[in-house]
Amino acid sequence: MASSCLQHTRISNSPSPTLSRSISNSSPFRNLNLRFRRPTRPIPPRILRIRAIDAAQPGDYEALIKDEFERTTKLKIAIVGFGRFGQFLAKTFIKQNHSVLAYNRTSRIDYSHIASKLGVLFFDDPHDLCEQHPDVVIICTAITATESVLKALPVQRLKRSTLFVDVLSVKEFPRKLFLQVLPVEFDLLCTHPMFGPDSAKDGWKGLNFMYERVRIGEEESRASRCDRFLRIFEQEGCDMVEMSCAEHDRHAAESQFMTHTVGRILEKLKLESTPINTKGYESLLSLVDNTSSDSFELYNGLFMYNKNSMEQLERLFMAFESLKKQLFGHLHDVLRKQLFENAEGSESSQEKIILPKLIQNGSVVESSQEVQ
Amino acid sequence: MASSCLQHTRISNSPSPTLSRSISNSSPFRNLNLRFRRPTRPIPPRILRIRAIDAAQPGDYEALIKDEFERTTKLKIAIVGFGRFGQFLAKTFIKQNHSVLAYNRTSRIDYSHIASKLGVLFFDDPHDLCEQHPDVVIICTAITATESVLKALPVQRLKRSTLFVDVLSVKEFPRKLFLQVLPVEFDLLCTHPMFGPDSAKDGWKGLNFMYERVRIGEEESRASRCDRFLRIFEQEGCDMVEMSCAEHDRHAAESQFMTHTVGRILEKLKLESTPINTKGYESLLSLVDNTSSDSFELYNGLFMYNKNSMEQLERLFMAFESLKKQLFGHLHDVLRKQLFENAEGSESSQEKIILPKLIQNGSVVESSQEVQ
Repeated sequence: MASSCLQHTRISNSPSPTLSRSISNSSPFRNLNLRFRRPTRPIPPRILRIRAIDAAQPGDYEALIKDEFERTTKLKIAIVGFGRFGQFLAKTFIKQNHSVLAYNRTSRIDYSHIASKLGVLFFDDPHDLCEQHPDVVIICTAITATESVLKALPVQRLKRSTLFVDVLSVKEFPRKLFLQVLPVEFDLLCTHPMFGPDSAKDGWKGLNFMYERVRIGEEESRASRCDRFLRIFEQEGCDMVEMSCAEHDRHAAESQFMTHTVGRILEKLKLESTPINTKGYESLLSLVDNTSSDSFELYNGLFMYNKNSMEQLERLFMAFESLKKQLFGHLHDVLRKQLFENAEGSESSQEKIILPKLIQNGSVVESSQEVQ
Repeated sequence: MASSCLQHTRISNSPSPTLSRSISNSSPFRNLNLRFRRPTRPIPPRILRIRAIDAAQPGDYEALIKDEFERTTKLKIAIVGFGRFGQFLAKTFIKQNHSVLAYNRTSRIDYSHIASKLGVLFFDDPHDLCEQHPDVVIICTAITATESVLKALPVQRLKRSTLFVDVLSVKEFPRKLFLQVLPVEFDLLCTHPMFGPDSAKDGWKGLNFMYERVRIGEEESRASRCDRFLRIFEQEGCDMVEMSCAEHDRHAAESQFMTHTVGRILEKLKLESTPINTKGYESLLSLVDNTSSDSFELYNGLFMYNKNSMEQLERLFMAFESLKKQLFGHLHDVLRKQLFENAEGSESSQEKIILPKLIQNGSVVESSQEVQ
């Protein structure tokens, strides 16, 4: 009790209902959030300044502070699509003391059980979820399922100011979908955490988080709610990259889609560690590890819903063809040269030796007479 | 002077010409080498035991010790093929106080100058090199040049006991070539350091070194010379992998050739770092870095001179084709399903919408009427 009184005195000398206004005017939200992050932590005496000793009743005062604290820091986040990635995000939201609700269209597995273990409130009915009036609805569905899930959501039951967020691996598609399908009153934020449960198993520090504020209302409360949501990732150490969805898709087709394509091709080869690995081969194996646990559905989504992917697939194919042409072209040159030289009868016995060797792709002909 | 007298007393009490025999019989070579590694380092008094105070004249004695020391630890190594890899090895040989000679068939660049900076004695004429009677001749040529360089070497000028070593990235080819081309008196050791100037720029520790003792004479001096050569790599911290050349080539086609192939394909795409790199994409970029500085000649050698490479190239191609089939097959399924459903007239207005979207590979159709 003492500590929250003391904390308040650092922020404002007004104990009246104008508290919320005075907080937002007197200091930027970021600072407020930092001060309130650990309310039970003792404040070092040197920074205490008691400004309002004759304030309102302690009871009123604390209740106000608590409400204000929760209003300005905690978010009620509804996760739509509670698969592997949704659960992965939920853990961090819960860790940061946000209130997390979840819904999944299908019920192939017991999501309620998973949710309760994580501290998440699970809903079987999307109407019930929406009636909870979450601040943020975050779409964590498979790319291919997004459109139908979004269209089936009873958005009329949400507050008109709701913030819709997506975390899909493609960005132009959900951006356009949000703009088309969702009511104009909703705020829209498109994001792509460039990591997942495997690549971020040791934390999110230093990993990229891309976002575009597609449509955020001008009111300060809307802007600050969006900032609060983004700060979840910032606080975990992500590198925050603000970028348009179109630019994301151009980069991601070259980087993420290409990585998945190469990883999936190599996975089909069932490569194994050998006793004579080179460093390069170890990079190759780690690439396969990094992509093999992602579903084909995700990969297919990256292909179908990013208009730049087809071009990248074609470029990869052409590069492969060009390399083969180089290898076989070289082989052909060597053989042809020998054939022509043989036809001219020059050093014919010597030339005949090299020819079969090349045909055998590296095996030296056994008879020493032929080689000598 | 004092220190070398003291050192000797630790090894043998015989100051006579039988010293060498007594050294090699009384202790394994490895221990001898360790004791002599730093002859100027003072020996702590507690381990001194003076056993031969009435020995021969100090002058004779020291000379004998010095000769024996050099004979049993220092190698005279001739590097044939003084390109990037030959120079890379030379640095470590010199660092370990071996005497290094070098020869290169062509003289496109000033090898003498490079050699003198490294402390290597360079020869323009292979006859001069061979007349120096090196203990070890190490073949560091490009795979494709090995046969012609080896055949042009005046091996008759070498001592009959010379140890021939190769460091090629393919192994069955040089093994068979050595057995066919070199006199039967020569010792043969095939090796493959699984690293190069780029991947081992921070030292050789923990990197794999593969070798096969193809033919080492039974005399102890021959066995110990081979060991001494191998110990150069062991001493730098390499993981020593004894393996047949055939087994090496099977593993290397899957690991090294595959890595180079993927690296070269990706290099053609001119991939660049983006602001939204994933960890997987960073593995991909590091793979390109790791292979791009190697020459096409090396890659072509891996392809032509390892009989397993063609099969691996075909497997990679088939894996790529299979992945494309999966992607396009899925696309086809979706389209066909829609076409059939349309033909049946069920929900035709709804289905027509999805079709153009898929054709456009991820772009949602702009008109909101069509989607709604």
